[in-house]
Amino acid sequence: MTLSVYLSGEIHTDWRDEIMEGCRAAGLDVVFSSPVLDHAASDDCGVAIMGAEASKFWHDHKGAKLNAIRTRKGIEEADVVVVRFGDKYKQWNAAFDAGQAAAMGTSLIVMHGDDHQHALKEVDAAALAVVQTSEQVVQILTYVQRGTLPG
Amino acid sequence: MTLSVYLSGEIHTDWRDEIMEGCRAAGLDVVFSSPVLDHAASDDCGVAIMGAEASKFWHDHKGAKLNAIRTRKGIEEADVVVVRFGDKYKQWNAAFDAGQAAAMGTSLIVMHGDDHQHALKEVDAAALAVVQTSEQVVQILTYVQRGTLPG
Amino acid sequence: MTLSVYLSGEIHTDWRDEIMEGCRAAGLDVVFSSPVLDHAASDDCGVAIMGAEASKFWHDHKGAKLNAIRTRKGIEEADVVVVRFGDKYKQWNAAFDAGQAAAMGTSLIVMHGDDHQHALKEVDAAALAVVQTSEQVVQILTYVQRGTLPG
Amino acid sequence: MTLSVYLSGEIHTDWRDEIMEGCRAAGLDVVFSSPVLDHAASDDCGVAIMGAEASKFWHDHKGAKLNAIRTRKGIEEADVVVVRFGDKYKQWNAAFDAGQAAAMGTSLIVMHGDDHQHALKEVDAAALAVVQTSEQVVQILTYVQRGTLPG
Amino acid sequence: MTLSVYLSGEIHTDWRDEIMEGCRAAGLDVVFSSPVLDHAASDDCGVAIMGAEASKFWHDHKGAKLNAIRTRKGIEEADVVVVRFGDKYKQWNAAFDAGQAAAMGTSLIVMHGDDHQHALKEVDAAALAVVQTSEQVVQILTYVQRGTLPG
Amino acid sequence: MTLSVYLSGEIHTDWRDEIMEGCRAAGLDVVFSSPVLDHAASDDCGVAIMGAEASKFWHDHKGAKLNAIRTRKGIEEADVVVVRFGDKYKQWNAAFDAGQAAAMGTSLIVMHGDDHQHALKEVDAAALAVVQTSEQVVQILTYVQRGTLPG
Amino acid sequence: MTLSVYLSGEIHTDWRDEIMEGCRAAGLDVVFSSPVLDHAASDDCGVAIMGAEASKFWHDHKGAKLNAIRTRKGIEEADVVVVRFGDKYKQWNAAFDAGQAAAMGTSLIVMHGDDHQHALKEVDAAALAVVQTSEQVVQILTYVQRGTLPG
Amino acid sequence: MTLSVYLSGEIHTDWRDEIMEGCRAAGLDVVFSSPVLDHAASDDCGVAIMGAEASKFWHDHKGAKLNAIRTRKGIEEADVVVVRFGDKYKQWNAAFDAGQAAAMGTSLIVMHGDDHQHALKEVDAAALAVVQTSEQVVQILTYVQRGTLPG
Repeated sequence: MTLSVYLSGEIHTDWRDEIMEGCRAAGLDVVFSSPVLDHAASDDCGVAIMGAEASKFWHDHKGAKLNAIRTRKGIEEADVVVVRFGDKYKQWNAAFDAGQAAAMGTSLIVMHGDDHQHALKEVDAAALAVVQTSEQVVQILTYVQRGTLPG
Repeated sequence: MTLSVYLSGEIHTDWRDEIMEGCRAAGLDVVFSSPVLDHAASDDCGVAIMGAEASKFWHDHKGAKLNAIRTRKGIEEADVVVVRFGDKYKQWNAAFDAGQAAAMGTSLIVMHGDDHQHALKEVDAAALAVVQTSEQVVQILTYVQRGTLPG
Repeated sequence: MTLSVYLSGEIHTDWRDEIMEGCRAAGLDVVFSSPVLDHAASDDCGVAIMGAEASKFWHDHKGAKLNAIRTRKGIEEADVVVVRFGDKYKQWNAAFDAGQAAAMGTSLIVMHGDDHQHALKEVDAAALAVVQTSEQVVQILTYVQRGTLPG
Repeated sequence: MTLSVYLSGEIHTDWRDEIMEGCRAAGLDVVFSSPVLDHAASDDCGVAIMGAEASKFWHDHKGAKLNAIRTRKGIEEADVVVVRFGDKYKQWNAAFDAGQAAAMGTSLIVMHGDDHQHALKEVDAAALAVVQTSEQVVQILTYVQRGTLPG
Repeated sequence: MTLSVYLSGEIHTDWRDEIMEGCRAAGLDVVFSSPVLDHAASDDCGVAIMGAEASKFWHDHKGAKLNAIRTRKGIEEADVVVVRFGDKYKQWNAAFDAGQAAAMGTSLIVMHGDDHQHALKEVDAAALAVVQTSEQVVQILTYVQRGTLPG
Repeated sequence: MTLSVYLSGEIHTDWRDEIMEGCRAAGLDVVFSSPVLDHAASDDCGVAIMGAEASKFWHDHKGAKLNAIRTRKGIEEADVVVVRFGDKYKQWNAAFDAGQAAAMGTSLIVMHGDDHQHALKEVDAAALAVVQTSEQVVQILTYVQRGTLPG
Repeated sequence: MTLSVYLSGEIHTDWRDEIMEGCRAAGLDVVFSSPVLDHAASDDCGVAIMGAEASKFWHDHKGAKLNAIRTRKGIEEADVVVVRFGDKYKQWNAAFDAGQAAAMGTSLIVMHGDDHQHALKEVDAAALAVVQTSEQVVQILTYVQRGTLPG
Repeated sequence: MTLSVYLSGEIHTDWRDEIMEGCRAAGLDVVFSSPVLDHAASDDCGVAIMGAEASKFWHDHKGAKLNAIRTRKGIEEADVVVVRFGDKYKQWNAAFDAGQAAAMGTSLIVMHGDDHQHALKEVDAAALAVVQTSEQVVQILTYVQRGTLPG
C-alpha cells in the first residue's frame, strides 16, 4: 500500500524535509508531492514564461494559475493532504488547499501551533488529525501504513 | 432564473446587508444564504447544545462542526459563492470555503481590499471575479441575471 | 432554507415524533422522511406483494430490497441524516445508513446513550454532531436554520 | 486482472489469514488490505500520537479518525469489500463500512452465521454475495478471477 | 414525498395505464414519465423532422437519438425505473434502459413473465424488485410512499 | 415535464426568438436560458464593473469570466443545449459550450448550414440532433415533450 | 497508450478469440477482459459456492450476482466496451452491459448482423461504432492506437 | 511525478514535435497523447473500416466518432490539455476539446497568436495559461514538474 501524500502550506521552515526524512528513516512506502517551494520562482513564474505585466494583480494572477497546475494534480492524486500553518503570513492558500481536499473527500491532516487553534477551528473540524510537529505526521503515516505505534 | 448566492467570510461589517439590500432595490431574483452571523452563538453553539468541554480545542471543534452543517448546505446549493476578506482576523474559514467552492466547480467571487492582493493570489486565481465593494457584487449579479450594466 | 432531514434507525421508541413535534412547535421549515416504521410491514412487505418464500433468507431479502427503494430516496435527498441507536437490537441497518450518508458527504447526526459510546466510535467520528436526546436534535436544527441557541 | 479486496469487520478470529492463505495457495492475483488488526493500537492510536484525553469520547474520537485514514483508502481502492460479522460485539463499524461500499457502488460480499441473518437483512440485500465461511470467499475470488468452480 | 417513476419497455399493451390508473385510484403522489408510445412516430421522428435517409440504418439512427433526449431525461430524473419485458420483440432498448438505471444507482423494478426468467437473470439481479403484474407495481409504490400493504 | 433549454452560440440573428416564439405558439412547457445577447455589454462587462484595463487581453478576460457565471449556470441546469453556428465569426465559444455539454452528458442539438458540415463533424458527432432551422428545433422540442410530429 | 477493452455479449462463437488474436498479430498494446465464458459455470456458480436453491429464480439470482462482480470491474476499467449480439438467444445481458457503459460515458462498439439492425437502434445510437465482424473491431483498435488504416 | 499531457488542435504545423522534443531535451517525465495526426486517415477512417457512405455527412460522422474513442481517452487521462489554434481553418474541434477539459476540471493551456485573442476570450478565460509558442509550453511543463524557470 503506497501512500500518496501532498504537503501543503508554509514554505519557510523545513517541516517537509523532516517528514520526508522521517518516513525514509522508517522505511515507509510513501510518495510525496508539494507546491513549488522556491518562493521567488513561485511568485514570478507567470511573467517569467508568459511575459511581464504592468499590474501587480495580473503579475500574480499569471503565476498563481501556473502554480495551480501543479497544486491541483498534487491534491487530486493524494491519499492524504497535510496542511501546515506556520507562525507568519496569511497562508490563505493553505486554507484554500484544505477546502479543496475536504470537498474531494480526501483525508486531511492539519499542523499548527496552539496560538492558531481558534482561528483554524473550521479547518481542524474537517481534518482527520490535528498535530503540532512533523514527528507526529511521521507517526501517523507509520500507523496508517503499518499499524504500529511509536515507543 | 433565480440565482442562489452564498455570502461567506467576514462577519464584522455590514457588507451582506449592502448586497442583499442592493439586489432587493434592483428587483433581482436572488436567494441568499450565509453562515450564522452571531459571533458568540457561532463560537459556542456546540457546547450550548451538546454540553461543556474542558478543553478549548473540543469546545471549538463541536461548534465548528455544527456550523459546517449550515455552511455545507449553503455552498452546495449556491450558483455563486461570494467570499469577503476583511481587514482583520485570519479568516482561514473564508479561504477554506473558497477552496470548497472551487473544488465543486461553483462560480466564485472574491471581495477584498488592495492590501490583501498578494496574499490572496491563489484564491483570486480560482475566482470568476475579484471586487472591492458590495456595490460591484450587486452590479455583477444584475449583469448575470439581466445582462444590463451600471450607468 | 428548507432543511430536508432523514430519520434513520431505532423504530421502537417515539424519538421521531419528539423531533418532528419539537420542530413544528419551533416553527422550523423542515421536511422529514424516514423508513417504514411499521415493523411487521417492514419485515413482510416483500412476500406480501411478490409472493411467499420458503426460506427465511429470501423472505427477508425481498423485503429489505423493497425497503431500500424508500431508504435510498430518503438518504439521497436529505441535507441531514439523523441516525439513532437505541438500547436494544443489533441495529446494523442504522450503521449501514450512516455509512451511506458518510460516503455521500451528507451531514450526519448520531444519537445514542453513553453505553454505546465505544462501540460507535467509528460512526461518531464521521458525524458532525453526537447527541443523546431528541431535544438536542431540535436545538441543532433550530440553530442550523435560524442561528439561535436554546435558552 | 489484479483484484483489490478490502477485508472489513471482525478482528478476533483468523478469517483474514484463511482467505489470504487460500488465495495464495490457489495462486490468485489478489491484493488485500484491511483495517489495523491490533485491537489495542486501534483503540489508542489517537492519544498515543496526539496526546492524552481526559474524556473517553475524545480518546476514542481521535483514534477512530486516524483509523479512518486507512479505512477510507482501503475501501476506495477496493474492487471487492468483504465484511465479516462475528459472533460477538456490536460491529457497527463493519456495517458502516458496508454502507460506504454500497454508496460507492463497490461489490460487497457479506460473511456471517445464520443467527445474524435477520438482523443483517438490509446489509445482505446490498451485497452481491452472502457467505458463511472463508473458503467460500476464496472460491468466489477464484471464480471471479478465473471462471473456475470448486470441485 | 413525491415519487418520480419512469416506465420503460414494452409499448404494445396497456400496462402503463394500469399502473398510472392504479396509483391515481390509490391517491398516491407519483409523477410518471415514459418514452414516446406512438410506435410509428418513435420510428420515424428523425426523418420526419430532419429529412429522409436512403439507408434504414441512418433512418433509425436519427430517430433513436431524438428518442434518447426524452429517455435520458426520464431516467435521470426518476427515483424508480420500472422496466417491462413483454412476450414479443427483442426489447433490447428495455435492457439498455435498465443498464443505465443500474449504473446511475437508480432503484429498478423489473416486470416480466416466468418464461423470460432465465434470460433476464442479470437484469433481475440488479433490480430491487421483480414482479409480474401492474398491480404489484402499484402495491410497491403504495408501500414505498405510505408504508401500507395490500389487503 | 418542463424542459430546460440553453440556447448557445450565434448572437447576430434572431434564431433564439424564433425558437422561443415557436415553442410558445405550440404551448410547450419549456424554460429557456442563454448568454447575454447584447454584444457590447458582453464584451465590456468586466471593465465596466471592475475597472478599466490597459491591455485588451485582460479587458476581454475580465468580461469573459463574468459571462462564464451565467453560461455555466445555463449549461449545468439545461436538459438540452442547442448550439448554433452562424455564417460569420469564429464562434469558438459555441464549440466550447458544446464541449462542456458533451462532457456533462447533456443532450446536445447542433444547428448550422451545410457549408460548415465538415468543419463541425466532431461537434455533430457528439450531438443527438443536427438541424438547419429554428423550426426544426421547435419540432424536436415538441416531439420530445409530447411525442407528436409535424404535419 | 495501453487500451483496456471489455468484450461483452454472445458466448457461443469464437469472436473474442478472433479479436484477441488479431490484436496480438498486429502487435497492439491492448488488455482484454470479459465475462466468464463457461456457460455452465456462469449459470451455476452461485449455488456451487453458496449452496443449492429450490427455486430456479434464486438459483439464477445467486449466480448472476457473482457474475456481476466480474462484469462490473471489467466495464468500469474499460476504455472501450465491445458488445456483440449473436444470432440466437435474448442477450438482454449484452444490452444491459451496453446501457451501463453508456451511462458511464465509456466508448461503446456494437457488433451485430443486419437482421438485428432495427431492434438494436437505441443501442447503436449510443455507440461510437457499429460493426459486423471481429476484423473490423481489430481495425478500429489498430486505428485508435496507431492512427493507421487497413490496406 | 509523471505528467500526462494531451496535445489537441491544429495538425498542420510541427508544434507537437517541438513540445515533445523540448521536453525530451529537458529530461522531463511527461507522457504525451494526441489525436490522429494523419489528416486523410482522420477524415476517412470511418468509411475505410465500416463501409462507404453516399452522404458526406455520414461519411464524416462515422469518422468523427471513431476519432472520439481516441480523443476521449486522451483527454480523460490527461493532467494537462494543451489546445493550439493555428492560423487557418475553423478548428471547432479544438474549442470543443477545450470545453470538455474545462467541464472535467482538467488543467488547460491554450496556445494561439494575437490575432485570435478576442475570438478566443471565452476559451482563454477557462485556461490556466495562454501562450504563443511551443517553447513556452515546454517552460511551463518544466516549471510544473521541477519548479525551475528558464534562464
